[in-house]
Amino acid sequence: MIILNINRNSETPIFKQVIDQLKEKIDNDVLKPGDRLPATRVFSDQLGVNRTTIYKAYQELWALGYIESKSGSYSYVRQRREQVFECEESSETSIDWSKRINPNAELVYKMYGKISFPFSEVKEQFEGVDFSILHPDKRLFPINEFKRSLNKIILEKGETVLDYGEGQGYAPLREFLAHRQRLHGISVTAQEILITNGAQNGIDLLMKLFAKPGARVFVESPTYGMIIPTLTYYNCEIVPIPMNSDGVDLSVIEKEFKKGLPIFFYTMPNFQNPTGITTNQEHREKLIALFEKHNVPIIEDAFEEEMKYFGKVPLPIKSMDINQIVIYVGSFSKILFPGIRLGWISADKKLIDRLITLKRISDISTAAPEQAALADFCMQGFFDLHIKRIHKVYRKRMQTAINELEMKIKNKNIEWIEPNGGFTFWLNFKNTKLSYEELNKIFYSNKVRFALGKDFFPTAQKEKYFRMSIASVDEEEIKTGIGRLAKAVKTIYKNKG
Amino acid sequence: MIILNINRNSETPIFKQVIDQLKEKIDNDVLKPGDRLPATRVFSDQLGVNRTTIYKAYQELWALGYIESKSGSYSYVRQRREQVFECEESSETSIDWSKRINPNAELVYKMYGKISFPFSEVKEQFEGVDFSILHPDKRLFPINEFKRSLNKIILEKGETVLDYGEGQGYAPLREFLAHRQRLHGISVTAQEILITNGAQNGIDLLMKLFAKPGARVFVESPTYGMIIPTLTYYNCEIVPIPMNSDGVDLSVIEKEFKKGLPIFFYTMPNFQNPTGITTNQEHREKLIALFEKHNVPIIEDAFEEEMKYFGKVPLPIKSMDINQIVIYVGSFSKILFPGIRLGWISADKKLIDRLITLKRISDISTAAPEQAALADFCMQGFFDLHIKRIHKVYRKRMQTAINELEMKIKNKNIEWIEPNGGFTFWLNFKNTKLSYEELNKIFYSNKVRFALGKDFFPTAQKEKYFRMSIASVDEEEIKTGIGRLAKAVKTIYKNKG
Repeated sequence: MIILNINRNSETPIFKQVIDQLKEKIDNDVLKPGDRLPATRVFSDQLGVNRTTIYKAYQELWALGYIESKSGSYSYVRQRREQVFECEESSETSIDWSKRINPNAELVYKMYGKISFPFSEVKEQFEGVDFSILHPDKRLFPINEFKRSLNKIILEKGETVLDYGEGQGYAPLREFLAHRQRLHGISVTAQEILITNGAQNGIDLLMKLFAKPGARVFVESPTYGMIIPTLTYYNCEIVPIPMNSDGVDLSVIEKEFKKGLPIFFYTMPNFQNPTGITTNQEHREKLIALFEKHNVPIIEDAFEEEMKYFGKVPLPIKSMDINQIVIYVGSFSKILFPGIRLGWISADKKLIDRLITLKRISDISTAAPEQAALADFCMQGFFDLHIKRIHKVYRKRMQTAINELEMKIKNKNIEWIEPNGGFTFWLNFKNTKLSYEELNKIFYSNKVRFALGKDFFPTAQKEKYFRMSIASVDEEEIKTGIGRLAKAVKTIYKNKG
Repeated sequence: MIILNINRNSETPIFKQVIDQLKEKIDNDVLKPGDRLPATRVFSDQLGVNRTTIYKAYQELWALGYIESKSGSYSYVRQRREQVFECEESSETSIDWSKRINPNAELVYKMYGKISFPFSEVKEQFEGVDFSILHPDKRLFPINEFKRSLNKIILEKGETVLDYGEGQGYAPLREFLAHRQRLHGISVTAQEILITNGAQNGIDLLMKLFAKPGARVFVESPTYGMIIPTLTYYNCEIVPIPMNSDGVDLSVIEKEFKKGLPIFFYTMPNFQNPTGITTNQEHREKLIALFEKHNVPIIEDAFEEEMKYFGKVPLPIKSMDINQIVIYVGSFSKILFPGIRLGWISADKKLIDRLITLKRISDISTAAPEQAALADFCMQGFFDLHIKRIHKVYRKRMQTAINELEMKIKNKNIEWIEPNGGFTFWLNFKNTKLSYEELNKIFYSNKVRFALGKDFFPTAQKEKYFRMSIASVDEEEIKTGIGRLAKAVKTIYKNKG
């Protein structure tokens, strides 16, 4: 029997009381899906209320989706999806979604899963020295200064920054960036800048702008790991351009141009991820000339532009871009915080205008509070201070890593190129028949970890590579870690080398 | 003559002083592109330094991209892009990008421009009562409470929330949402939720998941204005399903199913944007049955789920979704702040997993600080308080609008359906030959503004509609605005009606 408490002195009408109490019982599973409700006549007798009251209440509950009433029959509590409180794996549904979704979406999912590495959520318990991650060191985050800016912004401009913002991005931040880019020899106005949710969002918008099924895209080989699933999703033909020690191989570009123009070339000229190689000035000049000839855009991913702590790094390709074919992609993720997800694109205004349209249909705009806080933080000079501070720190770390590698890794099978800034070394393990998994096992048993080289190549490679990042390890950890690497190298090559 | 100040007692080597001072002169346009630098011999004599010092400095400047040196000839300041300081219109480049970019991107840009309306940046100076905008009223923003949460989060969890976060979204926020959805009869776990940059990002990710060129998509007609350019970009065939006063026209759906299955049906069952119509329970049941039969997903855009301040609104379609074909898209933009860009998708975990992959290649993850602050805000009960508060406010506003329309607009040519929640009325102006522009002119001259109906239809319509939103106007403004509407109506119909 269903017991309800009807209060005849309440201001709430009786039929409303019946509804509310039945709803509550259903919501709390006192009444379960499939349970039969009493017939209106029986229930009205039991509660001592008019039969039409119950009838009205049932009608309302049906209209609200709580019960189903077959005409001329009883009412039942509607079967809703079973309540699951624990975070168990999903109930298996009967639908085979793989056949219903975009085949490229399915392909990327099958190949890469949820793409968690190299991001933080995966970091399985690892107790050793972790050279695998390319996050800036949390210990260097200027948290207090940023907090102050965030506070100030919400206090002074809360109504504005919490409302819909400009599709192109918060204007004062764009002004700051235009100014900042001038320090790197790039001349753009705030109108030629679009703020994005980090560099990856910039890349995605550029894919939306340029991609056509089957289009060719030139990328460095190896390249930024995330570009590969991105290009796979957009159904592009990935044309790998090998990296030499002085930059990308220009002769391969010339050859590939003859086979068919790409929609763009994606390059990281400074401290390339993963190799750490900086493309020299001569290559940059030839590169821009080559692409200008065909009016093919170059996407210059300058995620580490600010990390020139050894001083001698050429100006960005964009600084030579008289004809506006270079699209510059910047990011705060590696030099400040990745969590605020802020980056930008500088390009020909005609392209920026089209990218704003695409930004609108993608997510309306980048969140404004962080943009405004960042603009305030930068304009107060904290960005400069922070850059100076991390230059000091990373200059030392990098020098330590260079020295330690030279001192401790004397095996001729291990090669690397000395970076002149940034965070990464690219270790080439020659003449080993061990698989990545086997090599990794040796590293793990020595309590040291690197990013697997194969994740950065669009095509399979014979040789084994590992990316060593000093982004999140201090000098002591670098010393310890390279000591462990040395031990691992001995195990790998035993008596050889 | 180029004057440099060489300090022989400085710790900075002389060649470095030469480099630094030349760089500064170039950066500040003292030396301009094309300017010839002195020959090394001449310059070394003038400065009284070794000739190899100048030679080394020039080499370095070349390597940094500042000068060009033709072999055996003079060095010149490199021509970089001309510096533009003002925010003037872009210099016209020679490249016709329209032929190089994705044709759908170009089409959307040509049709819709930068898609600024109905977002804030356009709001041209308008001095009257503005019924056109569907932003929540800034005057109701719980700014202080949110600021406190933001502060707390940065202070207590700064290192975590400013680092890379989970692709799926901040776990405590997903937990809150799972709990919250239960109040609306939806049973999902935090694993079945993906956090997005507002609902539009959710829609874009769903497009990435399901879209195939030429695929059919069912949408309500009229529908959310932004869905039309989005579907146009993704090259879909838009199949309009007319809205009746009790919800979407089911007979048209049945007919259209026979012509070809769509990849999904996009619907707003509550207080539909723009019509304000709520699809009734009977329709919802038939709808889900129809789509279950074909395993075709329904995207339920529930952007105003929380705005049920008149009480009598059916549960979401998702609450009846035993077979997991309903994809629920939620948003905080209309009920809290749009500026934080937070929304979510609840769906079959198999779909969520694939959406995480697509989120990764689109922007890595949604910014964490706002997610964490929102989770804290909600878990402290401020979300509930805010909802209660805005319910009270909007219940009164809506009642005022209903009464005022009834009282003041007696012309039979003007029709609307009384909404039972949300923010919008859909005014149908029958029997007028005036164009939207002419009608708009009459409204403007009466200092009142509405959103143009044509922006919400996928296909051209004979009748004229305007969306009246009470989201950002208070009771007094509503009274004034409807008074002005009444005057405008008189002008429009003169002696008729």
